[in-house]
Amino acid sequence: MKAAMYYGKEDVRIEQIEEPQLRPGTVKIAPAFNGICGSDLHLFHDGPMPPAPSDTDPHPLSGETLPVVMGHEFSGVVEEVGEGVEGLAVGDSVVVEPLMVDGTCPACKAGAYNLCEQMGFIGISGLGGGLSEHIVVESRWVHPVGDLPLDQAALIEPLSVALHAVKHSGVESGTAVVGGAGPIGLLVAAVLKAKGFTVIVSEMSTARREKAASTGVADVVVDPANDDLAAVVAEHTGGAGADVAFDAAGVAVVVEQLLSVLRGGGRLEVVAIHVKPVQLDITAQLTMQDRVLGSSIGYANDHEEAIELARSGKVDLAPFITGRITVDDIVEQGFTRLIENKDHEVKILVSM
Amino acid sequence: MKAAMYYGKEDVRIEQIEEPQLRPGTVKIAPAFNGICGSDLHLFHDGPMPPAPSDTDPHPLSGETLPVVMGHEFSGVVEEVGEGVEGLAVGDSVVVEPLMVDGTCPACKAGAYNLCEQMGFIGISGLGGGLSEHIVVESRWVHPVGDLPLDQAALIEPLSVALHAVKHSGVESGTAVVGGAGPIGLLVAAVLKAKGFTVIVSEMSTARREKAASTGVADVVVDPANDDLAAVVAEHTGGAGADVAFDAAGVAVVVEQLLSVLRGGGRLEVVAIHVKPVQLDITAQLTMQDRVLGSSIGYANDHEEAIELARSGKVDLAPFITGRITVDDIVEQGFTRLIENKDHEVKILVSM
Repeated sequence: MKAAMYYGKEDVRIEQIEEPQLRPGTVKIAPAFNGICGSDLHLFHDGPMPPAPSDTDPHPLSGETLPVVMGHEFSGVVEEVGEGVEGLAVGDSVVVEPLMVDGTCPACKAGAYNLCEQMGFIGISGLGGGLSEHIVVESRWVHPVGDLPLDQAALIEPLSVALHAVKHSGVESGTAVVGGAGPIGLLVAAVLKAKGFTVIVSEMSTARREKAASTGVADVVVDPANDDLAAVVAEHTGGAGADVAFDAAGVAVVVEQLLSVLRGGGRLEVVAIHVKPVQLDITAQLTMQDRVLGSSIGYANDHEEAIELARSGKVDLAPFITGRITVDDIVEQGFTRLIENKDHEVKILVSM
Repeated sequence: MKAAMYYGKEDVRIEQIEEPQLRPGTVKIAPAFNGICGSDLHLFHDGPMPPAPSDTDPHPLSGETLPVVMGHEFSGVVEEVGEGVEGLAVGDSVVVEPLMVDGTCPACKAGAYNLCEQMGFIGISGLGGGLSEHIVVESRWVHPVGDLPLDQAALIEPLSVALHAVKHSGVESGTAVVGGAGPIGLLVAAVLKAKGFTVIVSEMSTARREKAASTGVADVVVDPANDDLAAVVAEHTGGAGADVAFDAAGVAVVVEQLLSVLRGGGRLEVVAIHVKPVQLDITAQLTMQDRVLGSSIGYANDHEEAIELARSGKVDLAPFITGRITVDDIVEQGFTRLIENKDHEVKILVSM
C-alpha cells in the first residue's frame, strides 16, 4: 500500500509498504483526511526527536526505528473489525486517538494516560499512521464520529487538546482571554465559546485576528501591540479582570500580559510549548491576587466530548480547514506552505 | 491607656495614648495575647512599607500616618458592645480578623476581600492594634472563640492563613509535602494533618524538623540537604508522587524541588513571599505533567473554620507557643530573639 514515510530531517518519502494485518482487538481503517500538525512541521524541518524514534533507538512501546508512517490527526472509515471488538462496525466513520501507552505506570493506572512515562504517538513513534491507505489500531483508541463529516473529523484530535486545556483550567464560565490565535488558540476559543464564555482573543497577526472574528469564536479581537488589552478586559468585566486566560502562544511576554489582566483568583492556563524558561514574580503575579498558573499536555478521555461538541454544532470545525491536498504534494503544499503562509493557514488536510 | 507604638525602623515606643471610644456597630476589646509575626519583624528591622503608612502618607483606609499601634495577631475579651451589634456579648473570648477593606472594589464585591485594592491591617495600617489595653473594632471582624484558651486563640490569625492556602490548593486528600517548617509551614502541616493528609515536611533546620515531628503535624520529616526527598515521597505514594506540595520557604530551589516530587496533575501551592523572581520551565515543570502552581495571600471567610479546627482539637495550637513576654520586653525578648533564635522559636506571645 502507499504511505508517507518519515526518514528524518526534510526527508519524507511516498513509498509502497506492506499492508498491516487485522489482529484480535483491533480494527482496520482506511484513513480519509489527515491534518498537518505543528509536531509534523517540527519533525520535518528540525529532524527526529522523542517521541519519534531515531535511526538506531526504537521507541520503547512501538519497538520501531525510522522510517515510520506519518499522520496522527486523522479520520477514516472502518474496513475490518477484529475478534472481540465491540461498538464498531464496517463502514463506521471514526477518528483515532493516536496514542500508545504502557498502561502500567502510576499515571496510566490513575487514568491520566496522557502523562504515561513512555508515551508514544501513532504516526510519530510507529504503529502506522494516517498517511497510508490502511492502518490497524487497537479498538480502545478508535472513536466513532457518527454523521460528522470526515474532513471535520480530522480536527477532533487538536480539538481534544483544546478541550483538555479548558477542562484542566477548572473554570467553567465567565470571561476568557486567549493569547495567540494559531490553530490551538482558535480551537480553545471555539471550546470556550461553545461553553458560553465571553471570549477575547489577543493576537498580533491581522490575518489571525480576522480568522478569530470571522469564525465567530471571538467576541472581541485585540491587537496587543496597538490596543489596550487591559482596558478591553476591564470593559467586559466591570473592572474585575478575566476569570481565565489561555496562553496559546508560548512566549514569556504573553504569560506576563495574560497574568496582568486576570481577576483576583483568576487562572492562567498554558496550552503551548515554551522553548525557554520564563521569569515569574510569584509574589506579585500570583500570590497577591490568589492566582493560579496551570498547564496541560494532550488529552485523556476527552475525545468523546470533543466529538459531541463538533457533532452538535456547538463547535463548527469547517471554517478551520484552509487547504486540501493529496499526499504527493505534502512537502510543497503542506510543510512548506504552513511555514511560509502561517498566518493565513489554520489546518491543511491531506488525503491519500 | 498603654500601647506599643510603631514609629519606624527600630523605633517602637511604649506610650500612653488616648483610649478609643465605642461607636455603633463596633465592640471594645481588651486584648489578651498578641503573636509576633514575620511582618512585625520586617517592619521593625527594615522600616515602614505598605500596608504600613509612612510619616507623611496616610493609609487610604485608616487615614493614619505613623505612629500606629502594633499588633495584628491577637485574642481578647469583649468589654463593651456597640449599638446594633449582634452575636457578641461582654465577657466573650474573641479574636480579631485584623483587616480594613474598602468594600467597593471588584474583589470585595466578589467576597474575596483579601484581595481588596486598598487592603489594610489593623495593627499595621492604623485603627489601633492588639498591643494596647483597649481596641475598638467593627463587629464584622470580631469572631467569638468559645472556650478556646486565649493564648491559643492568638494563633488563629496565622492558622487562617494556613487554612486559606490549603483550601486554595483545591486538593482535599492524599499525600502532601510541606517545604519549610517555620510558623506558617508548621500550621499548614497542622491543617493538612487535621484534614487527613499524609504529611511529609522537608526542612533544613534540625530544630524545626524536631518541632514538626514532636508536634505530630508531620508523619515524616526530611532533611533535603542529606535525605532523598524524591525517594521518600515515592515510598509513600507507590511511586506516583505527591498530590500537593506547599512552599512555605519562599526560595526558588524549594519551588523547583517541590515541583519535581509532584504526581502528574499535582499542585504546588506557594504560601510564602518570594523576594526574587523564579525561573520556571513551564513546559518541563508544569505542562508535561498537567501540573498547577497556585498561590494565595491572607484569608477571607476562613476564621470560623480555623477556630473550629482549634476548638475541636483537630489542630492543637499549644505546642506552637514557644515564648510569653510582656510588652515592655518586646524588642529584646521579641523582635531580637525571633531573629537570633529563629530556628527554635515558633510563636512568641506578648501581653500588655
